[in-house]
Amino acid sequence: MNCELISVGTEILLGDILNSNVQFLSKELASLGINVMRHTTVGDNEARLLKALDDAFESCQAVILTGGLGPTPDDLTKETCCRYFSIDLREDGEILRKIESYFRLKNIDPMPQCNKKQALVPTVGRVLENNNGTAPGFILEKDEKIIVILPGPPKEMIPMYRESVKPYLKQFTNEVIVSHNIRTFGIGESYMSEKVEDLLDGSNPTVAPYAKSGEALLRVTAKAASEKEAEELMKPVIDEIKTRLGNSIYGIDSASIEQTVVELLKNRQQTAAFAESCTGGLCAKRITDISGASEVFHCGIVSYSNDIKHSVLGVKQETLDRFTAVSAETAREMAEGARKLADADYGISLTGYAGPGYEEDVGLIYIAVADKNETVVKKLLTGHRGNNCRDYNRHVAASNAFNQLRLAILKNDK
Amino acid sequence: MNCELISVGTEILLGDILNSNVQFLSKELASLGINVMRHTTVGDNEARLLKALDDAFESCQAVILTGGLGPTPDDLTKETCCRYFSIDLREDGEILRKIESYFRLKNIDPMPQCNKKQALVPTVGRVLENNNGTAPGFILEKDEKIIVILPGPPKEMIPMYRESVKPYLKQFTNEVIVSHNIRTFGIGESYMSEKVEDLLDGSNPTVAPYAKSGEALLRVTAKAASEKEAEELMKPVIDEIKTRLGNSIYGIDSASIEQTVVELLKNRQQTAAFAESCTGGLCAKRITDISGASEVFHCGIVSYSNDIKHSVLGVKQETLDRFTAVSAETAREMAEGARKLADADYGISLTGYAGPGYEEDVGLIYIAVADKNETVVKKLLTGHRGNNCRDYNRHVAASNAFNQLRLAILKNDK
Repeated sequence: MNCELISVGTEILLGDILNSNVQFLSKELASLGINVMRHTTVGDNEARLLKALDDAFESCQAVILTGGLGPTPDDLTKETCCRYFSIDLREDGEILRKIESYFRLKNIDPMPQCNKKQALVPTVGRVLENNNGTAPGFILEKDEKIIVILPGPPKEMIPMYRESVKPYLKQFTNEVIVSHNIRTFGIGESYMSEKVEDLLDGSNPTVAPYAKSGEALLRVTAKAASEKEAEELMKPVIDEIKTRLGNSIYGIDSASIEQTVVELLKNRQQTAAFAESCTGGLCAKRITDISGASEVFHCGIVSYSNDIKHSVLGVKQETLDRFTAVSAETAREMAEGARKLADADYGISLTGYAGPGYEEDVGLIYIAVADKNETVVKKLLTGHRGNNCRDYNRHVAASNAFNQLRLAILKNDK
Repeated sequence: MNCELISVGTEILLGDILNSNVQFLSKELASLGINVMRHTTVGDNEARLLKALDDAFESCQAVILTGGLGPTPDDLTKETCCRYFSIDLREDGEILRKIESYFRLKNIDPMPQCNKKQALVPTVGRVLENNNGTAPGFILEKDEKIIVILPGPPKEMIPMYRESVKPYLKQFTNEVIVSHNIRTFGIGESYMSEKVEDLLDGSNPTVAPYAKSGEALLRVTAKAASEKEAEELMKPVIDEIKTRLGNSIYGIDSASIEQTVVELLKNRQQTAAFAESCTGGLCAKRITDISGASEVFHCGIVSYSNDIKHSVLGVKQETLDRFTAVSAETAREMAEGARKLADADYGISLTGYAGPGYEEDVGLIYIAVADKNETVVKKLLTGHRGNNCRDYNRHVAASNAFNQLRLAILKNDK
């Protein structure tokens, strides 16, 4: 089945809202084997919405709309879709009472009159209950065409989709689509793609390369009648990719490199401590984004000045004076200091120039990983300078530190 | 002028990417008085992209495309747009050298062959330099139609838009729209709106309330022939809002509460040190997101275990045993310990339960700010529990810590 997503709302066209609904729905539909052909966003405007519906049904059997179900006069998604299918609207007493009680629950009594509008429902079609707001959703069918109408706020839309729409859509799909993300680090998208170029032409499973914030991944996707069949189709391809990319792969379907690192440490009951200068706490933040990180992470030091590098981490004043704060020598002593201070298995440090700026040092970062055997220091050149390089440089530096830690853990397994 | 935004990328239709580009571009175009009629997302598919261009030019003079400029064969935005305008492509030696040097800067030499593709440019039209990546952008004009092509990654697209596209588009607009964001903390959207209710009905300037991740802001927007005129229209309204909301306003057009805090400290040549438990480095990360934070921030301690709270921050073992790590008493000693350790003017601490989980303690966070006179401890209840509360609770806790620090700084001015 082919489907189009139409978002309705002038506020989206004005840039007031980041439209996350389409991402959620696209993922969900992909997992059902429903092809999303297009995303369209139009304002709260009847003519343009009617045009969008026409365009959508040229290539799709189903259209899912979000937004424009509010109580104000400019909300006209429901009315317009009913006009498109020539379906009338009637006031539903039960829904009206539900909306009224919703307001009483919020100590708003009487209910604002404009909300009565939300109790108007199509005379044919299905009404979808809204357990998180006042606007019900709808499923309309006519001449083999399907229109699904959902409220705009994600906290209303997402549960409504899960409770009512997903079960409804399942009847139209007789295949499943399963994907696996093979996530790599340290090789660019281009190099990764060249290594597996011949595999990129397959039709089922497909292999597609993606690059994002300093990482490259391969998505392997298979269509089949069952999940088991899909997995069987993918296994040989994934195995082949594993042999070709080896250690550059940090995880399959891992949420992130820090997720992988936390799991590696957990399985070995080991801990890591971070000493951060240029990343200013980003490594600590990212590792503690992961629920349960407390098992493997006890201590992070953000030593943003030389004094703190010396007084808290024990970097020798002489080292700072002779080599400066951004040097392999300082990185080494920071990592060893953090490991000692926290009595951790691994000490990781980062010191460098995140920018912004165009000076040639911007993007130069030293990363050290200290364990019981040795301290390895690496010099990273992000290649990013200018006004907007700071976030990128910090993110990539942190990711590289996690990857360097990952490789050290694996090395110690041998 | 009417404009449509077309995002190109199968990964967007699959839900792999949250499309933030359209929000950025929509805001920018609105500020130029350019009407965004529609957002459309299509996959990396020539036929559908050609159709999208046709549809767009039915109602628009300009189309801005993002994405599909990568080095891999499935990237075809440039090629398709040139076909649409029947423009040929040629290899540009200078751009090729620029891409090659970009890879050398990253210690990747020789450049992957597929990147040569990115040096192909239209034989007519303007090439937009990419200072943050390898793919140049383009402006193509034909028969009063305009196509602007930008790379997909925001870190490349945004600067390219600001450097090349915005100046180009200005020639098509004869009015300016200027906005100011009055940012508040500690009062909800409803309360804020009530305080200024009578001002929300204005037409020029308009005043609109927004709420986002625990903050509420008022956006004042004016249309005029010149920026100066627009500012004059807004001044009295902004002054009135200032008197009504007072200290709840932490900044006008301030990028964030941490931005405001860094400026307050800079102006007073003071420093702050952070001791973080539940936020795990988020405060340090957010303050060091700001370039130049090193003047006011020297030290952050992420004390994720009791041992570190005791050994590094000097929290008494007795306090931890008697009151536990999540208590006003521990927060107090953490803040005082951080202040002492870093020899800073202010010590700020956070300890609490970020979740995930439904236990009643989730969302309980103690925040302490210590200065030379006193240590103030506040108890925060975010009211957020469940599976997805962690990010929100961490973010809101950090924001509250910054605001508590802001109020302490202002208090010490008296």
